[in-house]
Amino acid sequence: MSDYSVINPYNDEVIKEITYTSRAETQQILKRVVKGQQIIANMTPYERSQVLMKLAELLERDKNKIAQQITLEMGKTLTDSLIEMDRAITTVKTSSYEALRIYGEVIPTDIASLRRDKKGIVEHFPVGVVLAITPFNFPINLSVHKIGPAIAAGNAVLFKPGPQNILSGQMLTNLCWEAGMSPDYFQIINPDIPVLSELVASPDIQCISFTGGVVAARAIAKNAGIKKLLFELGGNDPLIVMPDGDIDLAVKTAVNQRFWTAGQRCTASKKVFLHEKVYEEFKKKLVAASINLKIGDPTKGETIVGPVVNKKAADEVMRRIEQAVKAGAKVLLGNKREGNIIYPTILENVPASCDLVKEETFGPVIPLISFKDIEEVIEQVNSSSFGLQAGVFTQNLQTIKLLFKKLEVGALAVNDGPGFRAEHIPFGGVKNSGLGREGVAYAIREMSYLKTLIL
Amino acid sequence: MSDYSVINPYNDEVIKEITYTSRAETQQILKRVVKGQQIIANMTPYERSQVLMKLAELLERDKNKIAQQITLEMGKTLTDSLIEMDRAITTVKTSSYEALRIYGEVIPTDIASLRRDKKGIVEHFPVGVVLAITPFNFPINLSVHKIGPAIAAGNAVLFKPGPQNILSGQMLTNLCWEAGMSPDYFQIINPDIPVLSELVASPDIQCISFTGGVVAARAIAKNAGIKKLLFELGGNDPLIVMPDGDIDLAVKTAVNQRFWTAGQRCTASKKVFLHEKVYEEFKKKLVAASINLKIGDPTKGETIVGPVVNKKAADEVMRRIEQAVKAGAKVLLGNKREGNIIYPTILENVPASCDLVKEETFGPVIPLISFKDIEEVIEQVNSSSFGLQAGVFTQNLQTIKLLFKKLEVGALAVNDGPGFRAEHIPFGGVKNSGLGREGVAYAIREMSYLKTLIL
Amino acid sequence: MSDYSVINPYNDEVIKEITYTSRAETQQILKRVVKGQQIIANMTPYERSQVLMKLAELLERDKNKIAQQITLEMGKTLTDSLIEMDRAITTVKTSSYEALRIYGEVIPTDIASLRRDKKGIVEHFPVGVVLAITPFNFPINLSVHKIGPAIAAGNAVLFKPGPQNILSGQMLTNLCWEAGMSPDYFQIINPDIPVLSELVASPDIQCISFTGGVVAARAIAKNAGIKKLLFELGGNDPLIVMPDGDIDLAVKTAVNQRFWTAGQRCTASKKVFLHEKVYEEFKKKLVAASINLKIGDPTKGETIVGPVVNKKAADEVMRRIEQAVKAGAKVLLGNKREGNIIYPTILENVPASCDLVKEETFGPVIPLISFKDIEEVIEQVNSSSFGLQAGVFTQNLQTIKLLFKKLEVGALAVNDGPGFRAEHIPFGGVKNSGLGREGVAYAIREMSYLKTLIL
Amino acid sequence: MSDYSVINPYNDEVIKEITYTSRAETQQILKRVVKGQQIIANMTPYERSQVLMKLAELLERDKNKIAQQITLEMGKTLTDSLIEMDRAITTVKTSSYEALRIYGEVIPTDIASLRRDKKGIVEHFPVGVVLAITPFNFPINLSVHKIGPAIAAGNAVLFKPGPQNILSGQMLTNLCWEAGMSPDYFQIINPDIPVLSELVASPDIQCISFTGGVVAARAIAKNAGIKKLLFELGGNDPLIVMPDGDIDLAVKTAVNQRFWTAGQRCTASKKVFLHEKVYEEFKKKLVAASINLKIGDPTKGETIVGPVVNKKAADEVMRRIEQAVKAGAKVLLGNKREGNIIYPTILENVPASCDLVKEETFGPVIPLISFKDIEEVIEQVNSSSFGLQAGVFTQNLQTIKLLFKKLEVGALAVNDGPGFRAEHIPFGGVKNSGLGREGVAYAIREMSYLKTLIL
Repeated sequence: MSDYSVINPYNDEVIKEITYTSRAETQQILKRVVKGQQIIANMTPYERSQVLMKLAELLERDKNKIAQQITLEMGKTLTDSLIEMDRAITTVKTSSYEALRIYGEVIPTDIASLRRDKKGIVEHFPVGVVLAITPFNFPINLSVHKIGPAIAAGNAVLFKPGPQNILSGQMLTNLCWEAGMSPDYFQIINPDIPVLSELVASPDIQCISFTGGVVAARAIAKNAGIKKLLFELGGNDPLIVMPDGDIDLAVKTAVNQRFWTAGQRCTASKKVFLHEKVYEEFKKKLVAASINLKIGDPTKGETIVGPVVNKKAADEVMRRIEQAVKAGAKVLLGNKREGNIIYPTILENVPASCDLVKEETFGPVIPLISFKDIEEVIEQVNSSSFGLQAGVFTQNLQTIKLLFKKLEVGALAVNDGPGFRAEHIPFGGVKNSGLGREGVAYAIREMSYLKTLIL
Repeated sequence: MSDYSVINPYNDEVIKEITYTSRAETQQILKRVVKGQQIIANMTPYERSQVLMKLAELLERDKNKIAQQITLEMGKTLTDSLIEMDRAITTVKTSSYEALRIYGEVIPTDIASLRRDKKGIVEHFPVGVVLAITPFNFPINLSVHKIGPAIAAGNAVLFKPGPQNILSGQMLTNLCWEAGMSPDYFQIINPDIPVLSELVASPDIQCISFTGGVVAARAIAKNAGIKKLLFELGGNDPLIVMPDGDIDLAVKTAVNQRFWTAGQRCTASKKVFLHEKVYEEFKKKLVAASINLKIGDPTKGETIVGPVVNKKAADEVMRRIEQAVKAGAKVLLGNKREGNIIYPTILENVPASCDLVKEETFGPVIPLISFKDIEEVIEQVNSSSFGLQAGVFTQNLQTIKLLFKKLEVGALAVNDGPGFRAEHIPFGGVKNSGLGREGVAYAIREMSYLKTLIL
Repeated sequence: MSDYSVINPYNDEVIKEITYTSRAETQQILKRVVKGQQIIANMTPYERSQVLMKLAELLERDKNKIAQQITLEMGKTLTDSLIEMDRAITTVKTSSYEALRIYGEVIPTDIASLRRDKKGIVEHFPVGVVLAITPFNFPINLSVHKIGPAIAAGNAVLFKPGPQNILSGQMLTNLCWEAGMSPDYFQIINPDIPVLSELVASPDIQCISFTGGVVAARAIAKNAGIKKLLFELGGNDPLIVMPDGDIDLAVKTAVNQRFWTAGQRCTASKKVFLHEKVYEEFKKKLVAASINLKIGDPTKGETIVGPVVNKKAADEVMRRIEQAVKAGAKVLLGNKREGNIIYPTILENVPASCDLVKEETFGPVIPLISFKDIEEVIEQVNSSSFGLQAGVFTQNLQTIKLLFKKLEVGALAVNDGPGFRAEHIPFGGVKNSGLGREGVAYAIREMSYLKTLIL
Repeated sequence: MSDYSVINPYNDEVIKEITYTSRAETQQILKRVVKGQQIIANMTPYERSQVLMKLAELLERDKNKIAQQITLEMGKTLTDSLIEMDRAITTVKTSSYEALRIYGEVIPTDIASLRRDKKGIVEHFPVGVVLAITPFNFPINLSVHKIGPAIAAGNAVLFKPGPQNILSGQMLTNLCWEAGMSPDYFQIINPDIPVLSELVASPDIQCISFTGGVVAARAIAKNAGIKKLLFELGGNDPLIVMPDGDIDLAVKTAVNQRFWTAGQRCTASKKVFLHEKVYEEFKKKLVAASINLKIGDPTKGETIVGPVVNKKAADEVMRRIEQAVKAGAKVLLGNKREGNIIYPTILENVPASCDLVKEETFGPVIPLISFKDIEEVIEQVNSSSFGLQAGVFTQNLQTIKLLFKKLEVGALAVNDGPGFRAEHIPFGGVKNSGLGREGVAYAIREMSYLKTLIL
């Protein structure tokens, strides 16, 4: 008897019946990695680097197989899944290099009148056991963004993929083991919520690195006790186009960052703010660029837009579109559904109070918003409870400096969308968008503690 | 009508009747600093540095007055209070310098095959409002360890001193204002627990920096939601003496780090581990060095040991000594009380299960523990739920490397005790001893978030 | 009998007759500081920081007196001299702070298969004796840019001011001594060229920090042997104005950075490149802004343009203007001399082969150059043998990125001129403009060597 | 007609007749790389990293072939050559990683009262053309210690191997080209001294990285003009054994670091200082460990000691031994020659004035020196004109701290010899031992200049 089914979002077929990891088994696994953490803590930087380099090679070897599995289980296109795999390989390689680059600091003690003639030697030590909880949208890359740094830093890892991704999660786990990570310090688990909650509260876990929704994050924060918490949560990210911006590039970016992955990215261009002078041009070009996007079977190479992750998600996106339309929004394209596929949808005049723009909407829907003055945009963006990333198309330095200073976000990409991410650059938001920073070297430091030798 | 009295622990006289800051007033103050944070965020590094430099000058000017107030309200000796003031001045000066030293990082984007020809410009931004909750034992220095970095980083501060320290806290606040910090972004509050709990949960506060006990820390963690938490909690720190260690210096250190401040330091030498070869020598010398310590009125210059903070605290220390003695511990010195003064007490053969050594004991009590093999010490230290600091007296490199690698602590001081602290060096523990690091530049970074400009 | 006279460039009066430090005395002083370097090497960071802080206070105290002396001996206006003093105070204060901030690095050894289980502890040590040779134009600030970092780093200093500045140099030296620097490790010398050449070659000197001309730099390089050399040499720096630049600000900057100090700055705006679209506007406004500049006695508060440093310098500037005019240059303003005062001179159509633009011209002369395409400017700037700094007025990001990537210079200031300098930011050129970087923390590192402890 | 012959030092057979690169050809090659430098400067970090990674793979592929060539041409044992190859691969891999890690710094401008509201963005730019001049003893690893960082930093390279190593140098060059480095920016040259001197003086070369002797270094310094100079020169490095040191490990280290490579390492243990308490024990054990070392044909796997590089070198080593013996030194082992093979030689009572200990001796000769007090050793070591590295065997922290503070060297290895080197850790000496630091990331910075954008 199974606990739940992994269902192909494109055709609603059951891929596999899944049983949760039981409480007893979860506890046993925890005990094992707590003990096993000594093993990895005692490995040299070189040895940690080597298993990660090997993992990168294995991901390269099995790239296609895993990409197919991602597409099968969460519905994004194969092209999209392959891009994710390439990024995951970069993430793991970077973790391999950075494992060799965990340097400390030497600080003289004598900055006050007392002469002690000692120095402080400050080094990074592994925190212990890292619980890595990852989401469905980038099941491999977001997982290795936790596993790579955790291993580089010398931690044991309890890897808990999204329930929908347990199969690709198991594939990744197998490769980790094949690469030389011991099951004594690297394990996968798939417990139900009550068991997971107990785990969250366990004093045997020193760090929880979670990517997902803010509600779950709050529950974790409530239960975790005194523990290092890293949260990469949602966003409601703006793409801003100024009159002097490259409209064609902005359109291309909006399509890529909002219709690819069926709009299910934390950093998708969820709101497009257009200066009134370029509103009409952008609108026309965006509709033109979106109208013929290939929609349908995600396993086909030419498909650009596949299904969202499941029926419930599709229902919710459609509900929000309908709510917006009822409230007066005008549909420029889309507002159409086939199974779990939402057609690329472009709207204008969406009232600010609609869930579609107020909440984070995980689907291929772009609301266009016109503005006169950049200060309005700043105010609107900052009024959100989220603060992940932002993008602006402009060549104007003053605008760039103003936005960078004022926007309450983790990053501002110039002449790119909010979806910009490079695996080694700090990533993470403020407010409800998160706490702490990923980006390999940064994550390593978050998963370490400082120990000082006064010598 | 007052809510509580601040009582002089030496003579039990009421110093002042205190009323809590009400819920309404607390909320009003919060609103004010939330808005006022914009002011300090817009100050240049130079301007922030200047107010801090001015504060350092004012602390120097009022050093004696504040030291007397500290002694009056929490009972440590005037000498002790003056040392604290000197350290606080260093902390504030260092904050002033470090305000000019908040540098960012430039990272090329192109570490993978995709050519983007941009760079990531990573900078530190103020988190917003910092709630600084501080304890009674170092009411000024531990407060400026939060205020200094918070201001340097550009944050508004809600300063909540220990209830016992509301008067010295107000003195410090007045100096902050005199130094040029605006009441729009710097405020003191003294709410009761329920109102404080609401504050802890408020989304208008972005960081809580707390020094105090683990129980309170757990309560904060439970209520805080998604917020940066910095915890500097208790310790049960070992001082370890090896056969080749400098016995005289070790004795002197034990006396200073356990009998001064009546033993009420997080990093006090709460357990003294003596190699069996030097056990007898150390014991004899420690008793000799302690037997004539001047005890009594803390306002007198020659006094070394004054009262603990209040009657409840004194009762608890005595209860633990008695429990230990009943369980078989032998009293080598002390075990005597006068009012709230506990005489310097040295014990041996204290069973490991006694509260005196199992829990953190905040009083002038040294239990001596003999060992044969350093591995035993490591095991005993690591078996504690605390992990703050440790000290070892030895010249042996192998021992030092072993202890530094194995001890689960935030710092190991060589030829000094666990009480070692320099204001600019990372400070903080692991496990129940804390989360995050103070030390001015480190605290600044903890109270900042990274924002990246992709240019 | 004297060796030379210090002459007031404004009125040609002899200020003082000067005798060179003899060979014997120079050698004796060298011997003394070689030995004395041990003293400062053994001072704590705090102690070094304190003497520097004291020096900053004394410079503040004697600010006016020294400023008057600067004006007297090298002719720049009192206002200019006072600005220099303020900058010098910042330089010394920053040196005081940075003395506390000389941190090292901890590097694990095990990045290859061999397990050594050691770490490398890398620290900065003072190089030894620093010979600081400084020029006439900023006699105090350019001197403390060498002295401050040298002392912070723990070096002995042989300070050799420009011959014209021996009196202000002596004033600075007296303050250094009053601040607590020992004559055993800080000394001033004023040898003639042959004796200086011997000093340059001495193995007892470990670092020569020289600001001056390229010919002297080459002579130093030839004789110095194996020694750390830091060269801050001349420049022929462009100020570039794009069509979208702020013309008024650009004009104001050109006036300040070329007519103040009578044009005698390394980083003066020696060539002004104007986009053809703004050429006429800029020209008109520049002439208007320059025509009424107060010229004359530098000791008067309202004077903006005083004399150049001496008759020879004035002759040379006039010769170059005349040569340019003969070659076809058109005089828009100036080309007039009174004593050693050159009136602010603005030219156009100066042939590129004229010394005025080909060489570094140390006088208040601005040649205007029109351009169509920014690529022309890049080519012209890079064709110079100098490469110090550049400034551009524009809001356009693409232009900024292009210039920053392509210009062979040490710094590019956006919406400021090439004369931009902040005392803590790296400063120095490429090609004939120099080697190494000043800027306090950077200079400290240049004046230190790395010593590694493998532990 | 050839200019010189490469001769096998083991059997004196001519390996190849060599013609120097002519003046004309050298100039042509220089012109080519000056132009070609633009190519590599425009490559992304990823692209530079990739060619280096490919080079590491090719070195691994051809490891045995190149090792045999090294042994053939300079006579060290095949085992030794293979160890060098492994180190070279690590050096190149590390260069590949570090190419991705050239980060800059962001500095606020406003540390003084003037508000400018700008930031300084400081980045590393390639210096241009690097002339890499390398010696015979580690012909591949010391070459890639220059080539790897130079390429990582974006520079063109003129590679000038030792005349004796032109064949292995050509092999390395071929692999660089095969790895994807363009001959437009990477070239090998083999000019005679006059042509090389002209090259050294050329303004088209921005950096000379030289490993070799101090006389040649002085000649370079004299001719180079204003140019970045990196010198890794000789050493006369001490290995120090304290009474509490591990004698067996110290003996093993002395053998490895002085008899391997026939003693021809910059960092060989050229003087062994033994505390009088362990003198006899060490002496006995060292002779015992050395007496049966396999001597002879370096191509045989079991050989430990092969010939020195040529007859002239062997003559000189023997001359020094004989001089020492005449002056009273006692031979404990060796003092025997066969062809160019010098037998492992151990001496005691060598007068300090003998060339053998006063100069750097490049042969398998260990002089034993007894001492009572560590201060004597410090004095003797510091009295040398060299200051490369040092090693000490002790567990005593005080001794370690004292030596680290006082010894004028680039590194002190604890419980290892002066021969310690890890490819990523700073390497280089003081005084006549060099200027600047290698170690991959450090060399990259030395081969870059800072350019600052004020934005």
